[in-house]
Amino acid sequence: MSSAPRNVLWIMCDQLRWDYLSCYGHPHLHTPNIDRLAEKGVRFTNAYVQSPVCGPSRMSCYTGRYCHSHGSTWNGFPLRVGEPTLGDHLREIGVTPALVGKTHMVPDFKGMERLGIKPDTGVGRQIAECGFDPFERDDGLHPDTDYGGPDRYNDYLKEQGIQGSNPWNSRANAGLDAEGVRKSGWLLKYSRLPADIPEELSETPYMTRRAMEFIDQAGDAPWLCHLSFIKPHWPYIVPEPYASMYGPEHMIPPIRSEAEKDTDHPVFSAYIQSRICQTFARDAVRDEVVPAYMGLVKQIDDQMGVLFAYLEEKGLIETTMIVFTSDHGDYLGDHWMGEKDLFHDASVKVPLIVYDPRAEADGTRGTTSDALVEAIDMAPTFLNFFGGAPKPHILEGRNIDPLLHETGERWRDYAISEYDYATREARQIIGNAQDQARMIMVRDARWKYIHSEGMRPMLFDLETDPDELHDLGAAPGAELDAVRARMEAALFKWARRYVSRITLTPEQIERMTGKEPPGVVIGVWDEADYAATFGKPWRLEP
Amino acid sequence: MSSAPRNVLWIMCDQLRWDYLSCYGHPHLHTPNIDRLAEKGVRFTNAYVQSPVCGPSRMSCYTGRYCHSHGSTWNGFPLRVGEPTLGDHLREIGVTPALVGKTHMVPDFKGMERLGIKPDTGVGRQIAECGFDPFERDDGLHPDTDYGGPDRYNDYLKEQGIQGSNPWNSRANAGLDAEGVRKSGWLLKYSRLPADIPEELSETPYMTRRAMEFIDQAGDAPWLCHLSFIKPHWPYIVPEPYASMYGPEHMIPPIRSEAEKDTDHPVFSAYIQSRICQTFARDAVRDEVVPAYMGLVKQIDDQMGVLFAYLEEKGLIETTMIVFTSDHGDYLGDHWMGEKDLFHDASVKVPLIVYDPRAEADGTRGTTSDALVEAIDMAPTFLNFFGGAPKPHILEGRNIDPLLHETGERWRDYAISEYDYATREARQIIGNAQDQARMIMVRDARWKYIHSEGMRPMLFDLETDPDELHDLGAAPGAELDAVRARMEAALFKWARRYVSRITLTPEQIERMTGKEPPGVVIGVWDEADYAATFGKPWRLEP
Repeated sequence: MSSAPRNVLWIMCDQLRWDYLSCYGHPHLHTPNIDRLAEKGVRFTNAYVQSPVCGPSRMSCYTGRYCHSHGSTWNGFPLRVGEPTLGDHLREIGVTPALVGKTHMVPDFKGMERLGIKPDTGVGRQIAECGFDPFERDDGLHPDTDYGGPDRYNDYLKEQGIQGSNPWNSRANAGLDAEGVRKSGWLLKYSRLPADIPEELSETPYMTRRAMEFIDQAGDAPWLCHLSFIKPHWPYIVPEPYASMYGPEHMIPPIRSEAEKDTDHPVFSAYIQSRICQTFARDAVRDEVVPAYMGLVKQIDDQMGVLFAYLEEKGLIETTMIVFTSDHGDYLGDHWMGEKDLFHDASVKVPLIVYDPRAEADGTRGTTSDALVEAIDMAPTFLNFFGGAPKPHILEGRNIDPLLHETGERWRDYAISEYDYATREARQIIGNAQDQARMIMVRDARWKYIHSEGMRPMLFDLETDPDELHDLGAAPGAELDAVRARMEAALFKWARRYVSRITLTPEQIERMTGKEPPGVVIGVWDEADYAATFGKPWRLEP
Repeated sequence: MSSAPRNVLWIMCDQLRWDYLSCYGHPHLHTPNIDRLAEKGVRFTNAYVQSPVCGPSRMSCYTGRYCHSHGSTWNGFPLRVGEPTLGDHLREIGVTPALVGKTHMVPDFKGMERLGIKPDTGVGRQIAECGFDPFERDDGLHPDTDYGGPDRYNDYLKEQGIQGSNPWNSRANAGLDAEGVRKSGWLLKYSRLPADIPEELSETPYMTRRAMEFIDQAGDAPWLCHLSFIKPHWPYIVPEPYASMYGPEHMIPPIRSEAEKDTDHPVFSAYIQSRICQTFARDAVRDEVVPAYMGLVKQIDDQMGVLFAYLEEKGLIETTMIVFTSDHGDYLGDHWMGEKDLFHDASVKVPLIVYDPRAEADGTRGTTSDALVEAIDMAPTFLNFFGGAPKPHILEGRNIDPLLHETGERWRDYAISEYDYATREARQIIGNAQDQARMIMVRDARWKYIHSEGMRPMLFDLETDPDELHDLGAAPGAELDAVRARMEAALFKWARRYVSRITLTPEQIERMTGKEPPGVVIGVWDEADYAATFGKPWRLEP
């Protein structure tokens, strides 16, 4: 293969579970296009997002930093102005960081105002789009809100003759029941109705075409294109032929045990008892939602076929790194939960397939890696791919080249993910303070430990209990005590790291080491001492 | 006294030890003007800076945040653009945050450029001056460097007929020896020569006059004036009459023991062995330096007399909160050390006197408080004084009103201070990595514990060993084990706190709690479920 890297296509689904692809083992959901990418790249089996929720997970992806560092710990918590982004780093080295789709970014308008940055300037737009140059931004065109920004997709639908004030809502995410009555995909009962829109106009093919339009017009200058699908995230509804492609007979059974309902862990218990989780735990709900979810994934796979064929036709496949991943998973009733939120693999583990066109990666094509990879590893990997100098003082992830190129370099021992439930009903149920509403996952090769502020931890032995059904967080035993102590120590070390010492590179710090700034003389007795210390004669004035 | 607060005069010395004032017990250095302020206010006996070094300590003061949060962990490490400052918070509520003197601020020009912020605009200047409106900035006019910014003070000296390319260096910080040869105050041997400048033109009276000029022209609008003296920081040299006011007979003996030289703590050992500390540990050096240092402090006290008389004459004393403090101390040979750097009280404890004009403070006038106060407590205290809403999501210190007004409110259990020796010779001696070169002090009512990354801690029992001569960091014993474990637990809790979740107030987070954004419907089965859940009928389109 070619060894002249030029572009990165970073494909992200929203809420795609790691195990809903055939290359990851789903028995009925066949995804041959994504599987083919895995055959040409490395498929990671232990890739973790830095928070199991859209906003914070994505802010970590786009900054290459932990939530504890960037501070945008929940959806709608604005990313602080001045937080450096992957887009900033790429732009510095002449790479266009283009966005096609979703980011879940909420700008820090108050901070921008404080710094005199106008949102309608070039810099203002980049800050507001988390460092990207938006070719097309679409966070979902929710009714009743301007959440998601300008509705370019709605304009497109109207141009195509799809009517309505918000056809994203009333057509692409709604269907007609047997009586011809329009029903919304927001209501789970109607998930299996076919979305009332021609398939080629629905959101996933539209966004794929937009990515190809970006690539078409990008020319020869290097680019990173972040193609960020909204699906298979709710509203769970998909047009034909996908709507009737799957039924309950194609579903994998939920991972859960009756014993879990008796958990005494306050947060897990609060979630299991919550309205949303109680809904998704019902088999009748799963029977409607999961087939639609599978159809949405299948549609993405077909679009991957279109996109990869396009790249081959354009001769870009040999110069473009392609990453396929997700921002988090979806419980879909596992562990009696819906949505994401906590740290079971259904929620916090994601699919991650990396196709690296460089010859150095030829030895790993079609292999899997069980190394602990974090979503924040992508930013430094991309920066390195484009030849940028590493920025370990800012980027907290690690360039994954050693895993792609089998250098045998020692990898990380622990993956970290964070969860801030300050705005969640669970905090109200538990009754704790905003800044105590946090959990942090520490996952090593065998154990998953979940530090829970102000209460006992959770702990799973993934070797003997891969389904995470037996919470050993409070279980007695010297071995478990040792595991818990080791995990707390790892977390403590992580928490102490420098999070904001981002204005000097290690090289700059090295150059300062052992020296005082010019003009400063400390601890020198007299002229002779000065000459002996500094190897030059003293002068009163330089 | 009046209860109409209007202004804050925040006086900061540089490198003034807590115990070099007569109100703090110095037997020979009489500071009657500062003592009188203490008689009208509260004198704090356990006030700690957040780093024992100028730059990081000041960045903590000016942001109200720990070094771990703001990231400017050493002199010359630029404060990241976008880090909110006290000046920003005050400006929002119509208070002018004026600077007269030193800040040690180094702007993040690279970050400003990334955000399109021009240094020569109003906002650019405020960012570059750490949020202040600079009435006069003076960080010392070091030769060979532009460190310290524009040399307004040098221009002033030249206007007054003091000649030289840099009269700050060659006159205000130099003297003439017995042969009439000019000798620099940078060289310690010449510390007791009188500075070759009329006393009234030297830096401390000049800066005091500049503060009064600011106040004169400020009018009736509320202001905070940060009067920030460079002295008694080195160069240690002072004009007459202060130059000959003190001799070795007036010095308090150094606090040190022979046993300290045998310490096996790698950092303490590296410092004791360093050139600078070996210089300051010599009695001959102390005999020259300490009398000059005392003269510099005495000069400040006399200027405080001038300044306080001016405030009384202007009728401002009843509306102005006055704070007198320092950014850190000076070892002056204690513990065989010079400069600051580590966490003995000589270095990390500062004088702090707070005069609060409000009637609520009448009950505490002339008292002392041994509460653990941090320098970052000043910013929230000032914000509250001016009637600003608290900002606990940004400001990590605590408003000290409960200590000034004796409300009996529970105070903090631990004071934290940090030290980053990445750029220090000690790191080269020890040979550890940049990001491991850190120490964190945790001080409670009795113990001072110093976490030292990658090595054993230090520990002092201040009850039985107030001079900190017996390091119990590695001493055996169940009681000490328990103390060390408790201190580590406190540090771990501190390290886990949110450091960057600064874009939403607690009130905003509370309003989001238990709700989804408008237009988002999660986990709802059908129309009836929607109506039951949200108390209103379902509509496909709002």
